[in-house]
Amino acid sequence: MSAPENRGFASDNNAGIHPILLEAIREANSGHVIAYGDDVYTRKAETTFRKYFGPQTEVFFVLTGTGANVLSLASITRSFHAVISAGTAHIQVDECGAPEKFTGCKLISLPSPDGKLTAEKISEHLHGLGVEHHVQPRVISISQPTEMGTVYTPAEIRALAELAKNSGLLLHMDGARLANAAVSLDLPFKSFTTDAGVDVLSFGGTKNGMLFGESVVFLNPTLAADFKYLRKQAMQLASKMRFISAQFEVYLSSGVWFRNAEHANRMARLLFEKVSCIKGITITQPVQANAVFAIIPEKIIRPFQEKYFFYIWNESTSEVRWMTSFDTSPEDLDGFCNSLASLLA
Amino acid sequence: MSAPENRGFASDNNAGIHPILLEAIREANSGHVIAYGDDVYTRKAETTFRKYFGPQTEVFFVLTGTGANVLSLASITRSFHAVISAGTAHIQVDECGAPEKFTGCKLISLPSPDGKLTAEKISEHLHGLGVEHHVQPRVISISQPTEMGTVYTPAEIRALAELAKNSGLLLHMDGARLANAAVSLDLPFKSFTTDAGVDVLSFGGTKNGMLFGESVVFLNPTLAADFKYLRKQAMQLASKMRFISAQFEVYLSSGVWFRNAEHANRMARLLFEKVSCIKGITITQPVQANAVFAIIPEKIIRPFQEKYFFYIWNESTSEVRWMTSFDTSPEDLDGFCNSLASLLA
Amino acid sequence: MSAPENRGFASDNNAGIHPILLEAIREANSGHVIAYGDDVYTRKAETTFRKYFGPQTEVFFVLTGTGANVLSLASITRSFHAVISAGTAHIQVDECGAPEKFTGCKLISLPSPDGKLTAEKISEHLHGLGVEHHVQPRVISISQPTEMGTVYTPAEIRALAELAKNSGLLLHMDGARLANAAVSLDLPFKSFTTDAGVDVLSFGGTKNGMLFGESVVFLNPTLAADFKYLRKQAMQLASKMRFISAQFEVYLSSGVWFRNAEHANRMARLLFEKVSCIKGITITQPVQANAVFAIIPEKIIRPFQEKYFFYIWNESTSEVRWMTSFDTSPEDLDGFCNSLASLLA
Amino acid sequence: MSAPENRGFASDNNAGIHPILLEAIREANSGHVIAYGDDVYTRKAETTFRKYFGPQTEVFFVLTGTGANVLSLASITRSFHAVISAGTAHIQVDECGAPEKFTGCKLISLPSPDGKLTAEKISEHLHGLGVEHHVQPRVISISQPTEMGTVYTPAEIRALAELAKNSGLLLHMDGARLANAAVSLDLPFKSFTTDAGVDVLSFGGTKNGMLFGESVVFLNPTLAADFKYLRKQAMQLASKMRFISAQFEVYLSSGVWFRNAEHANRMARLLFEKVSCIKGITITQPVQANAVFAIIPEKIIRPFQEKYFFYIWNESTSEVRWMTSFDTSPEDLDGFCNSLASLLA
Repeated sequence: MSAPENRGFASDNNAGIHPILLEAIREANSGHVIAYGDDVYTRKAETTFRKYFGPQTEVFFVLTGTGANVLSLASITRSFHAVISAGTAHIQVDECGAPEKFTGCKLISLPSPDGKLTAEKISEHLHGLGVEHHVQPRVISISQPTEMGTVYTPAEIRALAELAKNSGLLLHMDGARLANAAVSLDLPFKSFTTDAGVDVLSFGGTKNGMLFGESVVFLNPTLAADFKYLRKQAMQLASKMRFISAQFEVYLSSGVWFRNAEHANRMARLLFEKVSCIKGITITQPVQANAVFAIIPEKIIRPFQEKYFFYIWNESTSEVRWMTSFDTSPEDLDGFCNSLASLLA
Repeated sequence: MSAPENRGFASDNNAGIHPILLEAIREANSGHVIAYGDDVYTRKAETTFRKYFGPQTEVFFVLTGTGANVLSLASITRSFHAVISAGTAHIQVDECGAPEKFTGCKLISLPSPDGKLTAEKISEHLHGLGVEHHVQPRVISISQPTEMGTVYTPAEIRALAELAKNSGLLLHMDGARLANAAVSLDLPFKSFTTDAGVDVLSFGGTKNGMLFGESVVFLNPTLAADFKYLRKQAMQLASKMRFISAQFEVYLSSGVWFRNAEHANRMARLLFEKVSCIKGITITQPVQANAVFAIIPEKIIRPFQEKYFFYIWNESTSEVRWMTSFDTSPEDLDGFCNSLASLLA
Repeated sequence: MSAPENRGFASDNNAGIHPILLEAIREANSGHVIAYGDDVYTRKAETTFRKYFGPQTEVFFVLTGTGANVLSLASITRSFHAVISAGTAHIQVDECGAPEKFTGCKLISLPSPDGKLTAEKISEHLHGLGVEHHVQPRVISISQPTEMGTVYTPAEIRALAELAKNSGLLLHMDGARLANAAVSLDLPFKSFTTDAGVDVLSFGGTKNGMLFGESVVFLNPTLAADFKYLRKQAMQLASKMRFISAQFEVYLSSGVWFRNAEHANRMARLLFEKVSCIKGITITQPVQANAVFAIIPEKIIRPFQEKYFFYIWNESTSEVRWMTSFDTSPEDLDGFCNSLASLLA
Repeated sequence: MSAPENRGFASDNNAGIHPILLEAIREANSGHVIAYGDDVYTRKAETTFRKYFGPQTEVFFVLTGTGANVLSLASITRSFHAVISAGTAHIQVDECGAPEKFTGCKLISLPSPDGKLTAEKISEHLHGLGVEHHVQPRVISISQPTEMGTVYTPAEIRALAELAKNSGLLLHMDGARLANAAVSLDLPFKSFTTDAGVDVLSFGGTKNGMLFGESVVFLNPTLAADFKYLRKQAMQLASKMRFISAQFEVYLSSGVWFRNAEHANRMARLLFEKVSCIKGITITQPVQANAVFAIIPEKIIRPFQEKYFFYIWNESTSEVRWMTSFDTSPEDLDGFCNSLASLLA
């Protein structure tokens, strides 16, 4: 399928590279540095991560979001462990079984209409502990924001961290869009990661303007001991690492992470407001980050997709997902909403 | 360890991005395209690959050289198969066990001073066929050029392909530096890959000037059927794929692949000539691509590394490896050789 | 925990070996035969399996029920596939993640109060086909009888087989207690396996009187090509295979499979009738094979377990499971029910 | 291929069950016990193992020799580790890649004509430590006796244990035929396992008269913490465990382990003496356990195999392997040697 030419609302990784981050790549393109991360760009970026997540932080750069998640999980599990997450989690439905394949673990999927887990839901699954016939729950994995565009409060995260600690589990956060959550909460990263008891974080840059670049952030650094071997064995060690590191450095220190996410969230809010006024559209999730979920009449889905490409979330209910990104313009929204309104008319 | 500031001879992936390829990224950075490869840049690059490797070619872009090798092997094996390669092969010694971990296969390592396999060496290991106690040989994997800087002739490759075909095996080529081999042989890629009977090729761009970008090229396209799932499950599917595709397109169609490799090979030849004149240095391998292997006095290794970083290949024999790259200058060579000569004096 | 001395109702594999099967072992213990299955006992047992399941049948003997299930699945999947089963399935909850570890596949768990799957439930999960981000459904796995003691009718199985065929999937049956199902249905094995469209069957003997011995039965023999390698690699190839084969031969040809299962089922039915008369007990599943599920007052569970060991199925509802076996006697039932009644009084 | 009817010299697991061990099974076949090892037979056998290997010993029963080896290795490695062994090791050549598949590790194969490793040979491979591109050596695995019928002295084992300790590695011993080594050395098990610094031992019973039954023996019990989960996930947990445990108990406490191995070793010695007198036969290995390796004229191999089945060890040199077992009789030897002599005449 080929996308229409205008900017669409299919996914924030359909956008390109933010100019300031492309410039960071260009500036790092000077002379030789040792490959695979033994370079000044990587050292500098690591230092910057420690400013944002605490001085104990150990960060490792990887290539894809799936890579960050799988390696986060692999570093804190053995093959007989289980990982508990919402049924909507990226690790459950969008990684083609990569977590199972690499870790050997079972992923336990809990139903969750809004993409969030609660201590109560999880507790029902903490049984069979110590019994060899059953996989042993080891990790609670949450997405912040969730794949449904909702955002956990720090208190909600702390409650899960507490359950994890009390039960001998660890807490992983998939932060592929962490910047959008920070903007939504109006809080620094640290307050709802390190300070809330998260052990390991997948922190993404690609969906918010980087060419490529994801990271595994050990907020609990005792878990990082063997990570470098796992990263290499998982094919996630970039040879010209400096070009990821240089982007992350600028991404964080220039504030572009904030500006891009703030813009995308604002555009989602605006989109929500605009479509809320259109009759025949039902918004199905709170709009807390950069996603809008809506039920629209089934018959207009295909004609609308021909003008603006987007994904159907649930075929049976005609629920669709619209994502905004750092480069969504108010004019894009106008065109989109006008097109939608005229199809509904 | 931090590298000295001058351009070194440690590895061709210590170099940066060739300007024409960075420009290709910049040009592709316009508007939205569908992520994960469903875009015009990728379609165009695929067409260009078919010009170079034959119309039947199926190419898939991936992120790392290890990823390309592991996925090449995974797509043509089941877990009880064995892969036969030289003991010097990248898959044997430089991938931290990634092939074993992902494929489950045993890698059989054959001693080879010059990095090449021969039909004779391999034939000794084609036993136990059909016996369930033994892994079943399924793939011959060769590197072109080899990790020792030597280059297979088309006839040598055809002989291995014939053995493979006659024995029910497949032939994989690790072409992380394939451009250097093509220049060395003064032959088009197709003549020593597709036409020589190679089934699957790892074709690299990173070591010859790309920011990042490797590929799995099915010259025998019947083997490609399930590849897309394996790529995703192996964490090797880039979300902003267009930036790999756009580089590969320009890499091939602009001829930069040739110019860069021709330059690197020429610099290696020049380096060989210069160091051959220095007393106390023994060159240990034919210089056919962009690597020079030499035995140098053990006592000068550390002082020399402080000026120009490079890798020790064999501690016990004081053998070292020097790689040239697309941006090596004659002046770099002069400085390097002068430094070496003065240390030896 | 140590069991009380009397015969309990915890599991049918707490029973020992049926004398006729121990005698089969003794008779096979004569002279040398080639190890690993190249022997006359194995050939004879294979022939007998073909009488029961059809002449096209390919059978392989393995060591454990988990081994039979994992190898059945491994032989018909690749790592990016998904296996769909009921949430109660042994492969989901009682194999410590062995299927995920060995196959790399995701197991999709469907809620099912009675342990059965239906075409309707499964159809909801047949989406994302052909999309590389999602695991690809490949196998429907059912247990016959189910882990809840219920039994599929041939028509129910045929409906699932039809769905599988129409959707490009395969049908696996976990028949760890297949004899109990055959007795319950009063039908030959073939009528609800081969003839109902099952592709691969785990057929067990251990729970019905064998010392040890399970099998993977390819009713669709085109799927068996590489099985012998997978069996060895999965550590499921017995060296003194003749002692499994000789048991299976006698198990089938002497009719002991039928007599044992018929007895166990009858004892379960009798148990059901007896406890149904006891006030304060709620039977929660139809008693169609050799299991009785009941909700009993929480406070009597521990005291009752001290007399007769059994497993709690669901802590939160006080649901327990009682299994009968080939050696359960009417007197065992009397003692059990009297003890239960007096605890409830 | 079907074996001739007489007792052969192909393998010690072509023999059946020693009567005393079959009787042990029969005696354990009484009433119900909890499945999967929570029974008095298993507790008793564990106690007996502690008498032989030291009070700290943790033993777990498994089903196959490959299972014992793979689980020994899995319990002390992570996927990026390497296991160093002789090229002749069972884990290298006779397990169809099971160690690689289950552990993900690379197995490094060292050439060894007599099947033994030395500290010197291993030391050459202890490089790349701490470098993420390379697998990290973690285990030295030796076979006692070796697959070539030779036996390590306690001093040789201690030297390897010392190297392991000094290098941060662990020492695994494959003792599928450990009884034959103990008899050969005329030493108790403990003296060349626990006391010599072995960390984990695969201890076998099947090749020396048991129906089935192998074990993983942690001499260093700190390594055993998660073993029970790995055993279940590896499909190596027997449901009717008591019948393995009861055999092992009698195997050790009755002295049948000694008598059987002593007999087999003596028969091998006698075979060696007899064939040494036959012209045209070259014995290629010291006969220290129950194997005789010999080079015989190529043209008599097939005719001889038709009378007495055995395995060709090396096609290119006409080297064959003859194994004796607990039930080999002097008459078997006479028949065998007479047949050989007449073929050579």
